[in-house]
Amino acid sequence: MVVVAILAAGRGTRMKSHLPKVLHSLGGRSLVERVLESVEPLSPSRRLVIVGYQAEEVKAAMESIPSLEFVEQSVQQGTGHAIQQLLPHLEGYTGDLLVLNGDVPLLRTQTLQHLWQTHQANQNAATILTAHLPNPKGYGRIFCNSENIVQQIVEDKDCTAAQRQNRRINAGVYCFRWQNLAQVLPHLKADNAQREYYLTDAVTQVGKVMAVDVEDYQEILGINDRLQLATAYEILQRRVKEKWMVAGVTLIDPNSITIDDTVELQPDVIIEPQTHLRGNTVIQAGSRIGPGSLIENSQLGENVTVLYSVVKNSIVQAGCQIGPYTHLRGHVQVGAGCRVGNFVELKNTQLGDRTNVAHLSYLGDTTVGTKVNIGAGTITANYDGVKKHRTKIGDRTKTGANSVLVAPITLGDDVYVAAGSTVTEDAPNDSLVIARARQVVKPGWRKKSAEF
Amino acid sequence: MVVVAILAAGRGTRMKSHLPKVLHSLGGRSLVERVLESVEPLSPSRRLVIVGYQAEEVKAAMESIPSLEFVEQSVQQGTGHAIQQLLPHLEGYTGDLLVLNGDVPLLRTQTLQHLWQTHQANQNAATILTAHLPNPKGYGRIFCNSENIVQQIVEDKDCTAAQRQNRRINAGVYCFRWQNLAQVLPHLKADNAQREYYLTDAVTQVGKVMAVDVEDYQEILGINDRLQLATAYEILQRRVKEKWMVAGVTLIDPNSITIDDTVELQPDVIIEPQTHLRGNTVIQAGSRIGPGSLIENSQLGENVTVLYSVVKNSIVQAGCQIGPYTHLRGHVQVGAGCRVGNFVELKNTQLGDRTNVAHLSYLGDTTVGTKVNIGAGTITANYDGVKKHRTKIGDRTKTGANSVLVAPITLGDDVYVAAGSTVTEDAPNDSLVIARARQVVKPGWRKKSAEF
Amino acid sequence: MVVVAILAAGRGTRMKSHLPKVLHSLGGRSLVERVLESVEPLSPSRRLVIVGYQAEEVKAAMESIPSLEFVEQSVQQGTGHAIQQLLPHLEGYTGDLLVLNGDVPLLRTQTLQHLWQTHQANQNAATILTAHLPNPKGYGRIFCNSENIVQQIVEDKDCTAAQRQNRRINAGVYCFRWQNLAQVLPHLKADNAQREYYLTDAVTQVGKVMAVDVEDYQEILGINDRLQLATAYEILQRRVKEKWMVAGVTLIDPNSITIDDTVELQPDVIIEPQTHLRGNTVIQAGSRIGPGSLIENSQLGENVTVLYSVVKNSIVQAGCQIGPYTHLRGHVQVGAGCRVGNFVELKNTQLGDRTNVAHLSYLGDTTVGTKVNIGAGTITANYDGVKKHRTKIGDRTKTGANSVLVAPITLGDDVYVAAGSTVTEDAPNDSLVIARARQVVKPGWRKKSAEF
Repeated sequence: MVVVAILAAGRGTRMKSHLPKVLHSLGGRSLVERVLESVEPLSPSRRLVIVGYQAEEVKAAMESIPSLEFVEQSVQQGTGHAIQQLLPHLEGYTGDLLVLNGDVPLLRTQTLQHLWQTHQANQNAATILTAHLPNPKGYGRIFCNSENIVQQIVEDKDCTAAQRQNRRINAGVYCFRWQNLAQVLPHLKADNAQREYYLTDAVTQVGKVMAVDVEDYQEILGINDRLQLATAYEILQRRVKEKWMVAGVTLIDPNSITIDDTVELQPDVIIEPQTHLRGNTVIQAGSRIGPGSLIENSQLGENVTVLYSVVKNSIVQAGCQIGPYTHLRGHVQVGAGCRVGNFVELKNTQLGDRTNVAHLSYLGDTTVGTKVNIGAGTITANYDGVKKHRTKIGDRTKTGANSVLVAPITLGDDVYVAAGSTVTEDAPNDSLVIARARQVVKPGWRKKSAEF
Repeated sequence: MVVVAILAAGRGTRMKSHLPKVLHSLGGRSLVERVLESVEPLSPSRRLVIVGYQAEEVKAAMESIPSLEFVEQSVQQGTGHAIQQLLPHLEGYTGDLLVLNGDVPLLRTQTLQHLWQTHQANQNAATILTAHLPNPKGYGRIFCNSENIVQQIVEDKDCTAAQRQNRRINAGVYCFRWQNLAQVLPHLKADNAQREYYLTDAVTQVGKVMAVDVEDYQEILGINDRLQLATAYEILQRRVKEKWMVAGVTLIDPNSITIDDTVELQPDVIIEPQTHLRGNTVIQAGSRIGPGSLIENSQLGENVTVLYSVVKNSIVQAGCQIGPYTHLRGHVQVGAGCRVGNFVELKNTQLGDRTNVAHLSYLGDTTVGTKVNIGAGTITANYDGVKKHRTKIGDRTKTGANSVLVAPITLGDDVYVAAGSTVTEDAPNDSLVIARARQVVKPGWRKKSAEF
Repeated sequence: MVVVAILAAGRGTRMKSHLPKVLHSLGGRSLVERVLESVEPLSPSRRLVIVGYQAEEVKAAMESIPSLEFVEQSVQQGTGHAIQQLLPHLEGYTGDLLVLNGDVPLLRTQTLQHLWQTHQANQNAATILTAHLPNPKGYGRIFCNSENIVQQIVEDKDCTAAQRQNRRINAGVYCFRWQNLAQVLPHLKADNAQREYYLTDAVTQVGKVMAVDVEDYQEILGINDRLQLATAYEILQRRVKEKWMVAGVTLIDPNSITIDDTVELQPDVIIEPQTHLRGNTVIQAGSRIGPGSLIENSQLGENVTVLYSVVKNSIVQAGCQIGPYTHLRGHVQVGAGCRVGNFVELKNTQLGDRTNVAHLSYLGDTTVGTKVNIGAGTITANYDGVKKHRTKIGDRTKTGANSVLVAPITLGDDVYVAAGSTVTEDAPNDSLVIARARQVVKPGWRKKSAEF
């Protein structure tokens, strides 16, 4: 059994932000949400988040996460002091405690599993995650014997020149046998320059302590400023993009593309440069997305092309051509084989199969049948200044250029709306709708007007 | 005389694709097309493509290339087995055979020329292309004497620790005196773990074998998965972009730009970030393209600016301003000094000099004269639901905002179309065209409507 | 007292440009303008630009800079010859001369200050800026004693193998006690292969010469071709972006973003990928800009979002949503809490607070009140073919879809313009404006039309 404690009380001064550090977003989720997700597969029996600075904001942001517990650390007096706050909450608990940092968001689940499994298999009192850094400056060094039993932990500033050569550092992630730790915690001393209680002091007193190396040292990156936030995003993006390339997705100029780790892509999808895939997006085989597109929380079928467009909260069936310069604004369903493009915005709208909305249109709150042709410049007037109304358009209907459909309105099947018509009343199947003035030509006008 | 054989029978499992590996696109052309192009200046007397896996797809994709021959390797039993398939096709041939790989697309022509010239000048039985790799792991090592005569070829897995230090590797590209090779090929043995026939076994038996180094080791990159495809694209792009920068083109943030190697740019062109130049595009001096633009198979004259736009299969004369948010969809000719922009789509349309289509227009199948002003929101209704019709607009004509021109239709010179008019009949020179309803103002309407 | 001389006479052949090299733009300002700016805080008493190749173009481009002096070097015979041209201009001058290069644009002001202060504090005859380069090839090496007194300057080609190991190079930036230099200059000899007069020859004759290291060797990069121009831009961008990240700005994928060094950003601004901030742009806290946006010379208030849009010379108040696909073309003021987006262009237009122009509109020369709803497709016909006219729209007014407002025109407060209306006359407060034809429906039309 394992209880997880997440340190999330720090101030994060170098972020220079109104937002608590652990709530900053990294690829669509906050730092602390990412930490929670990484540990989820270990099925922790309890999850305790230690909050302090801007505690209310942190708690509010996470209140929708079920069964999360918050522990207040009202003054910040070091990591040892933070973990001391757990004592009243874990009285009598006999399992393990996994200590994570709310600002270290890149740890992989398998790293945590490996840490815990090693801890259990060896019946350690504590197990520390360690990393071998190319540049270990600033980190506490871990010295072990050949069985990875920790002999000494030395802070960077206390290292001798020889000790400083050791690149194995303390990643600040620990697994403890709680009962051992609970005995030691009350006796920590703050006899150092910062007057803080260090968790590392507890580590050396709990009993047998082992070190476990993280495979990829980039996992332990902590976020203290926006530069590190950008670095973390780059690491995360490289992971995600390599995964999809290995799985058979072509990324043209991968460096210019961003893909949230919640996105699903099928083989033979092609992503063009400067394309961003976000949220719960799924793209099926053979589709080509971009350049210059943003797809968010949307499902795209097979062989869809999207060019210079924004698609949010929408479903696009197979074989559609979207863009350039299309905005599917949300709650849009596009049937198979449609063309939607060239300065077209759809909102809360359904298109049947093989329907085209090809130029300069806005359709809002509209249901369109199959094989419909929405003429260039056609607009649904869905808003009467007070509320929104629906437009219904039957199969094979065609609207002329610059026509306006004033909702609520229903056009039947096979209706033909003449160009330039403002349609305010329903039209039955097979009808022609015309609502425009007759043309008058005044010859010689230029000459005359010049005479004035 | 040289015959070229291209190995294109492999499965390419790691591509995870429905498409045969050698047909994957790299900057607008398939891998195998790039290999063919690189060897074209050597004027090979015959070009034999050895196909196997998905042979029909490969042949179909290349059937338009004249005088290409395909040789079937029905089972894949190694490179030696592949080249054995040539025996019936090259009976009695007395020249050289150049063996290339369909998935090694970055070899420069001068590298192949140098290989062949060295082969001939030294009357070698075989000449191998070699490279010095920073990380040679996995490659067969080539050991030569001081005259570059090959003494030994050792597979990576068979290397001693000392041999492994040798970074000179076999690039898998060979030039053979065919008669020597033809004598050896039938006697190859598959006495190895994979039960495959290796071409390297033949190499060591044909006679005098020389090694020739490639100057830039990146040329020998083979494509086995999408990561390598992305790497190859990056290498190719760096080549192309450096070439144009040296030639006097300014690239602002070159890493964000892609330029097909078929594009031609004049000095003092400026390419802004996130711009993509593709196909047979030519851009003349002083033009500034981007940010955020895609130009494909188009000619742009001097001092053209394009901003956030898509231009395909079009010709734009000098001094035009295109964009932001313009789509020249194809078969578009824009005269000198025009402004086309702000949500404008042109298709199969010609504009005379100094004509503006500045806002929210779609012109399809339209011929426009010089000094015309197409008002904002003007649309040609070129499609009657059955077929497309043409619109003709004379010189100096002006269309009002939101006017519709219902094709087929002809407006003469100096015509003025009133705003909001739907024009269905031709208008002679110098005429005013008006087709709209009179305005009615109902005062106090808000109060009255509130009374209901 | 310090006089600044800037060498700007060179040809810059490798730029392959019609533009003189020092006039090429680097992040919005020319190379030589950047050099001038870097030295401005030293308050030089005079600034002399030595021009030669395309002297007239260089002078014309800089004529608006007050109190700049130009010195002609009619033939280019080396740096010593260039500085000789100053002799008649600085007769009797007793202060220092700072020699800069017009094509070395990245030197920081503090570097120049440090150079000059060291020069003065040590009463040097000359002080040379030096750098330690990873690859010093091609540069003259500086050999100093332990007090940084220069002992020897050796050109790269004259170096012994041992001397070549010295990575401390001459950056070509000097501070001279002018009186010492003026005595030496007339006696320079051109006894070298190039028949040029070298300023380094003068350095060794003026008296006590000290070397001062630049902290960041990237500052000394000279621009000789477009590759170096691109490198300089990358260095400059990295500086600017790191500065803003440290200051609390989130950059998502910083490599894809460009920010002019004239831009001001507040903490908690978020810049999405492929966004470009240029000129005198200011963005306030909480705003999120991009992806894919270009903001130039504009002020954006707090909590503004801009998505795939172009904003130039405009002011946008707090809480606005701009885009996707909006173009604020210039002289636009958007009040607080407005939505402008989806294929909308505004030019010389003011919007009051909480006004929406949400779809497919062009408003030019228009003043709009508060809480106005501009319907989709509404267009101001501001151009009668001869000149531009203004449109005025009162508070809470609503225009219907595809309506046209023919300027000059004034709509009062609480006016309702019916969809599809072309409005040509003013409308008072509280009025309904309607200008469209009645709808006619012809049933069975499809069948009938098929009978023909």
